[in-house]
Amino acid sequence: MIAPLTPLEFARRAGRIYAEREAVVDGDVRLTYAQFLDRCNRWSAVLRQLGVEPGDRVACIAPNTRAHLESYYAIPQLGAVIVPINYRLSADDFRYIIEHSGAKIVCADSEYCAAVDRVREQLPGVKHFVAFDGNKQGWWSYEESLAAVMPLTDFPLIDENSVLSINYTSGTTARPKGVMLTHRNIYLNILGRTAHTPMTMTERYLWTLPMFHVNGWAFVWAITAVGGTHVCLRRPDPQAIFEKLCDEGITLFCAAPTVLISIANAPAEVRRNAPRGVRVLTAGAPPAAATIQCIEGELGWIVTHLYGLTEVSPVVTICEVRPEHAALDADAAARIKARQGVECLAAGEVRVVDDAGQEVPHDGATLGEIVMRGHAVMAGYYNDPEATAHAFRGGWFHSGDAAVVHPDGYIEIRDRWKDVIVSGGENISSIEVEGVLIRHPCVREVAVVGMPHEKWGETPCAFVVLQDGKQVEVNDLRCFCRENLAHFKVPHEFRFVEELPKTTTGKVQKYMLRGGRPNFLAPS
Amino acid sequence: MIAPLTPLEFARRAGRIYAEREAVVDGDVRLTYAQFLDRCNRWSAVLRQLGVEPGDRVACIAPNTRAHLESYYAIPQLGAVIVPINYRLSADDFRYIIEHSGAKIVCADSEYCAAVDRVREQLPGVKHFVAFDGNKQGWWSYEESLAAVMPLTDFPLIDENSVLSINYTSGTTARPKGVMLTHRNIYLNILGRTAHTPMTMTERYLWTLPMFHVNGWAFVWAITAVGGTHVCLRRPDPQAIFEKLCDEGITLFCAAPTVLISIANAPAEVRRNAPRGVRVLTAGAPPAAATIQCIEGELGWIVTHLYGLTEVSPVVTICEVRPEHAALDADAAARIKARQGVECLAAGEVRVVDDAGQEVPHDGATLGEIVMRGHAVMAGYYNDPEATAHAFRGGWFHSGDAAVVHPDGYIEIRDRWKDVIVSGGENISSIEVEGVLIRHPCVREVAVVGMPHEKWGETPCAFVVLQDGKQVEVNDLRCFCRENLAHFKVPHEFRFVEELPKTTTGKVQKYMLRGGRPNFLAPS
Repeated sequence: MIAPLTPLEFARRAGRIYAEREAVVDGDVRLTYAQFLDRCNRWSAVLRQLGVEPGDRVACIAPNTRAHLESYYAIPQLGAVIVPINYRLSADDFRYIIEHSGAKIVCADSEYCAAVDRVREQLPGVKHFVAFDGNKQGWWSYEESLAAVMPLTDFPLIDENSVLSINYTSGTTARPKGVMLTHRNIYLNILGRTAHTPMTMTERYLWTLPMFHVNGWAFVWAITAVGGTHVCLRRPDPQAIFEKLCDEGITLFCAAPTVLISIANAPAEVRRNAPRGVRVLTAGAPPAAATIQCIEGELGWIVTHLYGLTEVSPVVTICEVRPEHAALDADAAARIKARQGVECLAAGEVRVVDDAGQEVPHDGATLGEIVMRGHAVMAGYYNDPEATAHAFRGGWFHSGDAAVVHPDGYIEIRDRWKDVIVSGGENISSIEVEGVLIRHPCVREVAVVGMPHEKWGETPCAFVVLQDGKQVEVNDLRCFCRENLAHFKVPHEFRFVEELPKTTTGKVQKYMLRGGRPNFLAPS
Repeated sequence: MIAPLTPLEFARRAGRIYAEREAVVDGDVRLTYAQFLDRCNRWSAVLRQLGVEPGDRVACIAPNTRAHLESYYAIPQLGAVIVPINYRLSADDFRYIIEHSGAKIVCADSEYCAAVDRVREQLPGVKHFVAFDGNKQGWWSYEESLAAVMPLTDFPLIDENSVLSINYTSGTTARPKGVMLTHRNIYLNILGRTAHTPMTMTERYLWTLPMFHVNGWAFVWAITAVGGTHVCLRRPDPQAIFEKLCDEGITLFCAAPTVLISIANAPAEVRRNAPRGVRVLTAGAPPAAATIQCIEGELGWIVTHLYGLTEVSPVVTICEVRPEHAALDADAAARIKARQGVECLAAGEVRVVDDAGQEVPHDGATLGEIVMRGHAVMAGYYNDPEATAHAFRGGWFHSGDAAVVHPDGYIEIRDRWKDVIVSGGENISSIEVEGVLIRHPCVREVAVVGMPHEKWGETPCAFVVLQDGKQVEVNDLRCFCRENLAHFKVPHEFRFVEELPKTTTGKVQKYMLRGGRPNFLAPS
């Protein structure tokens, strides 16, 4: 008699009680929940005709369109697994993920069909290719296929602990890993979300966050749970965002801090007439105080800072507003808002621990690694037992994020755990040291890493790129650090370099600076 | 790696992140979450010393006090089962429930120790008696016991599908049945609640609803989930309620319509200075339009109507406000608010079906029985497989409530299903016919039941108590009904009686009028 926990339940409920309400706006197309769910069920019928069985993987490469959104229902309700792929990746990355996931079907927006076609011959496991829009040679047409079938009505019973999605991590230093999230993981993460971010059927949600990004932080289902409206958006550029905000009466959207910055910096004529009171959820990196002050102070929106990872469904903490925060000035309030905060409801346990697994003191200074266990935590990495075992050592999922805990219990990330420098038993945040050096007028860029040291274990070493035409003595930099840092945090060594090694997405590759391979386990 | 769903998780989380916030106010006593949970853990230690093992039942008979509240944590975290008993019952009812549940320990507020002592010799299965307050001969002292132990720290792992509470139904026509609710039932019911009734750590909840009433509609844990404050109250009389509202800055409370009526009718000097914006959740019976208009219009509070039963954890529907309701006048809005509404999030499926299990049309007229399945639905009746099988016939839990579904999908209860009269294939709500007759100036009370009829199966029969000194012809009553009802609903027979048979709580015993035993399955 026990019913499974699955976000598909939200669709069933919306179909019953919100059937005539607007579900999706995608360009000129407007769909009620009845129409939207009819399309999802037709898409399921097509997929079944194409041979999709429970457990099969179906990959999607698409921006935020209705076809992409429909796939988050049509695929899982067959008991199959959706594999959303970051459309910004290269054709070879597409190939790797499609092959690694063992996808039987690949669906793509027409923008990405050509890239897939380039690697198509290397994908013998894929049985069919479906183009979400238009007609492409060698691709099934999504819209024509939907029109040609009757909506599916018989669906398999879902096991709540079966995998709903495999979401590939960005993999800065190694091949991406496939994070397996279950129906139960996602259902509970959404219910916790609705507790912290109250939503109703009047919600009009703007799809600024890519759906491929951990299933749009599960909002592909959360908005349906409350009977709100999904407003699709192909690209989150500020002009398009502000237009939709006005034209569609948007009440809520999600955005990484980079998108928030572009919104905050939009020209005045673009920002004109923007509605006030819009709620913005941000995660992925701490939002800068200046960005928060602009968004909240000037635009009159409300920013909430969440934290999580693909591996945790993805939200585990929220920077929950406390009554005592009301007395803070804007600057102090923004600094608090940049913290990752406290455990969300229904997420599970979140701790910050030292290498021995002991919780660090709540002193706002001692660094530890954020670890988690419970409802939000993934089933494991797909076909990668070694990486899974490493991530779950000691029974806790290790986030790889280094953080402090403030006396009020709020967590604040200070670094990646692998970049923390352990010197004489003290943990030093490389980012803290970098933050000081970057303020020196001669320094353009800097990266600080730990180097082996006989006595101290490791000592900080700074790689410095100078401003064009500027020069500075090492001793000047050392003194500058001593004035602004505890002495044990001052780099023992300063190296001037022409440029820092970076990934294609602009992240500094610190393992290159340390002169070798990444210091964490790479998937085989 | 899968963590159990249990409301005890809310306590763990509150202890971590709300430790210094106010958890409980009980008279002059104020406890932070750290203090409150310390007391819960001491109470667990005492219970373990008294021999409580996982699966054991512990009965509680108490008004809304901190000791009673603490029991909702201390007992389940041992893996034991709490059996809250309605303190308004007789000593013999106490005996029946304690014996039927097999309780090993009985805890009671000092007000009820004497009643328990009267039946004590008939309770050989009870090993210990604990008095929640004061010192009673033959009873352990709760406060002294707590002071004498160290808080328990090792708790068993909870199976989410194990029973957390056994809540006995009121049993108007038979012995009460013990409803088994699991940790998972209650956890999900609370998460769904937080989605529909957003709450935060600033919530100050007044305990007007008895905790024994389905665990205070699960608010014993829901308030802890958000880090709010439980404000205890021994008796929900209007004077005390208004005092607490002002003195404690209450933001939220629950109340059956009878309590709402007493609030609405409180004298002006009592209502003076009442805060505005208080949220009120009501359930148990539809609130009258006049009551809603007074509470919302005059006091400026917000009333939300929920529906459920002990057997469903207990909330399954909410009369959710829709944007289009805003255009309604106060009278129409209050009529909508009296409806039971639509499925809550995370409650499961709710349908209104005919005898064949088919959903009734959404026409606001066709009567069916409300049935449910899914997360909210109990594990069964304790030690009563026959009643359990009967309630779950066809795989759905049968509520016994007769309702219509309006075109907007909102459910409205019209009768108890067993009181619906089936005449010539048409379902007639006895309450609808009574509602017409009670408006006749000569009628003081009326009850309508179905009587067997050769041609129609059943026909309505009205039992009428006249106003003192009034007289009326049967034909006048018949004409009056014909003017106000569809003809097939007009009673075939009218009987004048001195009084109607009633239970001690004032409910009309319709099975007595039908001249026999209840027409539904009684527990053995």
